[in-house]
Amino acid sequence: MFDPEAPPELAVSRWFNTTDPLTLAGLKGKVVVLTAFQMLCPDCVEHGLPQVRRLRQNFSPEEVAIVGLHTVFEHHKAMTVDALEAFLHEYRWPFPVGVDTADGEGMPKTMAAYEMQGTPTLLLFDREGRLRRHYFGRPNDIMLAAEIMAMAIEDKGAPREQAAGIEKKLARVLANPEHGHQHDHEHGEDCGCGHDHGHDGHDHHHHHPPGNAR
Amino acid sequence: MFDPEAPPELAVSRWFNTTDPLTLAGLKGKVVVLTAFQMLCPDCVEHGLPQVRRLRQNFSPEEVAIVGLHTVFEHHKAMTVDALEAFLHEYRWPFPVGVDTADGEGMPKTMAAYEMQGTPTLLLFDREGRLRRHYFGRPNDIMLAAEIMAMAIEDKGAPREQAAGIEKKLARVLANPEHGHQHDHEHGEDCGCGHDHGHDGHDHHHHHPPGNAR
Amino acid sequence: MFDPEAPPELAVSRWFNTTDPLTLAGLKGKVVVLTAFQMLCPDCVEHGLPQVRRLRQNFSPEEVAIVGLHTVFEHHKAMTVDALEAFLHEYRWPFPVGVDTADGEGMPKTMAAYEMQGTPTLLLFDREGRLRRHYFGRPNDIMLAAEIMAMAIEDKGAPREQAAGIEKKLARVLANPEHGHQHDHEHGEDCGCGHDHGHDGHDHHHHHPPGNAR
Amino acid sequence: MFDPEAPPELAVSRWFNTTDPLTLAGLKGKVVVLTAFQMLCPDCVEHGLPQVRRLRQNFSPEEVAIVGLHTVFEHHKAMTVDALEAFLHEYRWPFPVGVDTADGEGMPKTMAAYEMQGTPTLLLFDREGRLRRHYFGRPNDIMLAAEIMAMAIEDKGAPREQAAGIEKKLARVLANPEHGHQHDHEHGEDCGCGHDHGHDGHDHHHHHPPGNAR
Repeated sequence: MFDPEAPPELAVSRWFNTTDPLTLAGLKGKVVVLTAFQMLCPDCVEHGLPQVRRLRQNFSPEEVAIVGLHTVFEHHKAMTVDALEAFLHEYRWPFPVGVDTADGEGMPKTMAAYEMQGTPTLLLFDREGRLRRHYFGRPNDIMLAAEIMAMAIEDKGAPREQAAGIEKKLARVLANPEHGHQHDHEHGEDCGCGHDHGHDGHDHHHHHPPGNAR
Repeated sequence: MFDPEAPPELAVSRWFNTTDPLTLAGLKGKVVVLTAFQMLCPDCVEHGLPQVRRLRQNFSPEEVAIVGLHTVFEHHKAMTVDALEAFLHEYRWPFPVGVDTADGEGMPKTMAAYEMQGTPTLLLFDREGRLRRHYFGRPNDIMLAAEIMAMAIEDKGAPREQAAGIEKKLARVLANPEHGHQHDHEHGEDCGCGHDHGHDGHDHHHHHPPGNAR
Repeated sequence: MFDPEAPPELAVSRWFNTTDPLTLAGLKGKVVVLTAFQMLCPDCVEHGLPQVRRLRQNFSPEEVAIVGLHTVFEHHKAMTVDALEAFLHEYRWPFPVGVDTADGEGMPKTMAAYEMQGTPTLLLFDREGRLRRHYFGRPNDIMLAAEIMAMAIEDKGAPREQAAGIEKKLARVLANPEHGHQHDHEHGEDCGCGHDHGHDGHDHHHHHPPGNAR
Repeated sequence: MFDPEAPPELAVSRWFNTTDPLTLAGLKGKVVVLTAFQMLCPDCVEHGLPQVRRLRQNFSPEEVAIVGLHTVFEHHKAMTVDALEAFLHEYRWPFPVGVDTADGEGMPKTMAAYEMQGTPTLLLFDREGRLRRHYFGRPNDIMLAAEIMAMAIEDKGAPREQAAGIEKKLARVLANPEHGHQHDHEHGEDCGCGHDHGHDGHDHHHHHPPGNAR
């Protein structure tokens, strides 16, 4: 059973744009923005990756880590590691990118462990490594920036109650009519969805709140 | 001498899109985003006003008040109250807009009191009514949303130290290379600048921090 | 009865951005692109006027004349000649603009004579002064550029048959599924439409072909 | 020596989005718009390919053929035929695409034969199969549409003089200050340029006019 308070470690077979491999454990202390993408997913190339590039330009990498994860679940012969390397070189994405460990022709391991519905998917982890947001599709810049900043205000090593308090503030301050639905991890069985879902312009997201308010 | 801890009240001769006149005093308890614009300023119509419309869509009006201020400092015969009313009707801006009280053919009263350099200008006030940011030009969505959210996390009636603490977090979390310069309220005498400054794409801003960190 | 082969002369009470008043008669020999707009019509400011600015940058003014016409049919107290002058100054539209002669509080004279449905409206006249296209809404750049170029290929003073031949080519070369409907000048009585029609993204247009093919 | 009046045939090792292989010889009678691209060239994905998609939506395929050519001159291990197939599937480009025949690790054969400088490159051929335009970078929609329409007005099988006459019209009608330079096929030896040239926003182009006017 997925536990957002102790989410699974990344399973990465190769890293680009970083000298040392990254782990969620090693990133503790920072807010982490993870974008799961496929290099041939139009919505990732047009929206997901440019958005995290903008986040990268506005948040200090000492406090907010931006991480890409190449989660190939289709076209495996096309989206090889060589192809990814060329893609990263040509587009000059300025953040570390890991290759999600393949598991045959199905979903790669991290993607499966996080029960992702497709690409682009964006995950937000707080400084304590808890998974706080899970977006599939196109969350907007303003909402994302507000959530990242709120989590960045939380202290390293702070008790769980502080995060719960920040979540209450977020719930009160953000007007978020179209994001009201939540899944309790029953998604997936009824959708079998791929990345094309992102194209219809509406977002799917999951709160994994540390508080009991939601 | 301008005091950001006790900034001057708005001088408004007429309100639109609100049944009751607004005052900064009456808005205490909310974060306030004020956009000073002119209806015939292209940068206001293309960037400033659409940006606060996006902010309005993402932040609850119970917690973050969006206010427009029509600060006519040129073309007075064109940008009349009748013209503004038609402009507001046609563009359907979804927030209250006040007419800055004219002072002959020069800058209107609020604009002068805040030493604005032109339009669009964006001011951020915290829940205690302190002026915390003063942007001239085009601040970006992500930085603005982060700053608004950080101020929204501050409690109503909290001591000044809480705001100072939040400012320290903002200074650490936001990567803000192009926004480093600050004026200590000596601007204005040497620039005589109008809204065209906004067109060169760089931003001018003033921090009025409640802390001593900056 | 409206005759596209001999369309009515412009009724203009004042010109801007030109030393001499313009007339359709005087423009004979050039293809004429006329954009009818209102300065407080969002679709005109965001689409219609920037589009003719792009046309102005690509077609020689010796061969293709771009003309603006301020057709005020609402908010008369707001869209005065003073307001228009400020608008033209601020946006720096690089083409002559005439003020359509007012007729009380209703449609101005040229707008009424051409049975326009609202703003933005774009009219294309050939070198012989015949009205060849009448668009209400947002025709796209590619189609417009193709039509303008085709008319520019027609010779000055050429017989009517040459224009008919060019129209046949246009009908064959342009793929134009959404533009198939035509009015035979019965519009207007049933629509009473204003410029908001342009907002729904589909175009209305009228062919006034010199040939009998359509 | 390159002869635009009798340009080399396409050398294509595999076709997608068409049941029958295409040849320039077989396309005679139509105006041909050929876009040479690489699937991992950002300027191709963001500008070149969307532009020909727009052309495809506006010009009848019976009269104007849109053809893609995958000219891989770098990252050969990444931009394989399998990768291209996935790319075409995901982006749903609605026109035939050929794979330019590889020639080891250098430029593929068609790219070399046409002395292309990089990607995106756009070639326009007239109904008689003559190469009339060669753009490297980002030509704009309006200019391209005008040139395509002008060539589409030329008759199939018309004498060379007709094309020369149309070129004279184009030279007179299009205002084209930034496109004035021409190479006489001496390019290449001094540039060794790749697709990054397209990123600086200026266009390089070659006229191969059938007339002697230029």
